[in-house]
Amino acid sequence: MEGSSVFMIEQNLLPFEFKIYEAKNWKDCCFAIKSMITRGAGAIGATAGFAMAQAYLEATTTKNQGIIFIAKKEIEATRPTARNLFYAVDRVFKAGQTSPENAIAEAQKMADENIEEAKLIGKYGNDLISDGFRIETHCNAGWLGFVDYGSALSPIYFAKEAGKNIFVYVDETRPRSQGARLTAWELQNEEIPHAIIPDNAGAYYMSKGDVDLMIVGADRIAANGDVANKIGTLEKAVVAREFGVPFYVAAPLSTFDMNSSTGKNIIIEQRNQDEIFFQSGLDSNGNKVKIQVTNPGSEALNPAFDVTPAKYIKGIITEKGIISADAESIKKLFE
Amino acid sequence: MEGSSVFMIEQNLLPFEFKIYEAKNWKDCCFAIKSMITRGAGAIGATAGFAMAQAYLEATTTKNQGIIFIAKKEIEATRPTARNLFYAVDRVFKAGQTSPENAIAEAQKMADENIEEAKLIGKYGNDLISDGFRIETHCNAGWLGFVDYGSALSPIYFAKEAGKNIFVYVDETRPRSQGARLTAWELQNEEIPHAIIPDNAGAYYMSKGDVDLMIVGADRIAANGDVANKIGTLEKAVVAREFGVPFYVAAPLSTFDMNSSTGKNIIIEQRNQDEIFFQSGLDSNGNKVKIQVTNPGSEALNPAFDVTPAKYIKGIITEKGIISADAESIKKLFE
Repeated sequence: MEGSSVFMIEQNLLPFEFKIYEAKNWKDCCFAIKSMITRGAGAIGATAGFAMAQAYLEATTTKNQGIIFIAKKEIEATRPTARNLFYAVDRVFKAGQTSPENAIAEAQKMADENIEEAKLIGKYGNDLISDGFRIETHCNAGWLGFVDYGSALSPIYFAKEAGKNIFVYVDETRPRSQGARLTAWELQNEEIPHAIIPDNAGAYYMSKGDVDLMIVGADRIAANGDVANKIGTLEKAVVAREFGVPFYVAAPLSTFDMNSSTGKNIIIEQRNQDEIFFQSGLDSNGNKVKIQVTNPGSEALNPAFDVTPAKYIKGIITEKGIISADAESIKKLFE
Repeated sequence: MEGSSVFMIEQNLLPFEFKIYEAKNWKDCCFAIKSMITRGAGAIGATAGFAMAQAYLEATTTKNQGIIFIAKKEIEATRPTARNLFYAVDRVFKAGQTSPENAIAEAQKMADENIEEAKLIGKYGNDLISDGFRIETHCNAGWLGFVDYGSALSPIYFAKEAGKNIFVYVDETRPRSQGARLTAWELQNEEIPHAIIPDNAGAYYMSKGDVDLMIVGADRIAANGDVANKIGTLEKAVVAREFGVPFYVAAPLSTFDMNSSTGKNIIIEQRNQDEIFFQSGLDSNGNKVKIQVTNPGSEALNPAFDVTPAKYIKGIITEKGIISADAESIKKLFE
């Protein structure tokens, strides 16, 4: 945040164009979250926190305190599955009740914490990675999805810094292809050897013994260790267990929702079917084009997330260390 | 086949354009198989059979019998995983040794048999479908992939004809999206309610109890019941077993390879990574455009098939009835 504006990478343009989006007010931030200009659990949380702070600024300027409550509701409605969003809005909402400056300070503090948490996740997660490991990941839970480092990719970045030879299988992650577009772009920037694979190819490489470890991020973790994350995570977790691939979730404590006793209560967002019908990319002249890639007369179903029951998860990598995915271990985290 | 030409639907243009491709000689047929103008186990088999017959015609015209052996090798090299291809080439090769006319007759006979087999598969498979069933399928094993009816979709067509209310979850089937483009197009033509889902969403719907049955086709079935089919089939089979969804494979006897004792011996074709990098479709002006949809600097891995071990398969629907996926049951089929 600079002045009253929040600046973020325009992720919808990646990997073809690098651009910074300026959110001048909380409504712009809501638009940024909804339209996925910014995405990823940590980045959504940070954006939501700053948006709440912007609402306090606006309430002061316009002398209309009602805006704060309207904004809170609208920010929370942008992405119903993201735990960090509610956590951030709550914290900044409370901090702002003394002054708008406190709201801004709290939002900034949360963004800084996000970086520290991601670093610790990287440090702990790195212990799971041996030299020569081939690691699979789904969607994007790297620095684009956070303020820096990321969750699932942070251990990979720490392993690389530690001089380990690693290779990453990047799930394409249809329909929005965050793997093929964002994770691949991040890994290329970090000079980490990787290959994009169709989501369909996960089981093939796992069954051949070609995957040593799988790490994914999380949008929300229930008190019993069930994990809501990008659609397809459940599928990978089931297949990983079947073929003996250790399946880890990486997430900061802010992703845990102690009010959800199990994953069954987590609302799954159904997104627009156009995300399946249309794909955007570069044509042969380098122009950005959107095309229909599916049968024009058909319907589509587009659940954005699924819930992976705790039993499929070997462990959760947090800023407080790696824990088992069960109610007792999670409870201890918060003591 | 009409005269010396073989006519087939240009499947690469579907679902946006309907066009017939004329293969004037066996080389055109090889090109059609390699470039996936024609695809699907049964259609590849029929095309390969006709191609072999065309080679006999050419050998007679040019008085060069060597062409027959060159053609046999080249046709067999087009798609190494497709069992029906080798089966068809063998049968027509043998028939042609008496006369080119016998080669043509044999190829036509095989195409006719293909239809009859597909009908019987539909008839037997229909017994598995109750009114109100929601059926998932992967890739395209419908009439486009055969001479008519198809394998995996044939039971669905028979269920519809029998007046049953059914709904089909169509796996998109990246990277070539045969589900979203071909199966969806076929089902729309047959007026069967369906929705395209990202490959990632299979486990989500299965875990919710929303899928009653899954049927897929096969490119090759080993003597022990292991099945080579489109990449992603293994993943779905593992997930289906986990969530108690009966997982069936539909295929005619010509898909069985009694020389492969298990699926471990089946060669998996690695296709060009451009299939992952680029997608083609219609832009807003209705023009067909090819665009890059992935991070430009990254590599990709593109295995075309995987092998599903027999233990994940509830049964195989053949023209001789539904059998268990085990060595003994398969052996009996051929007695």
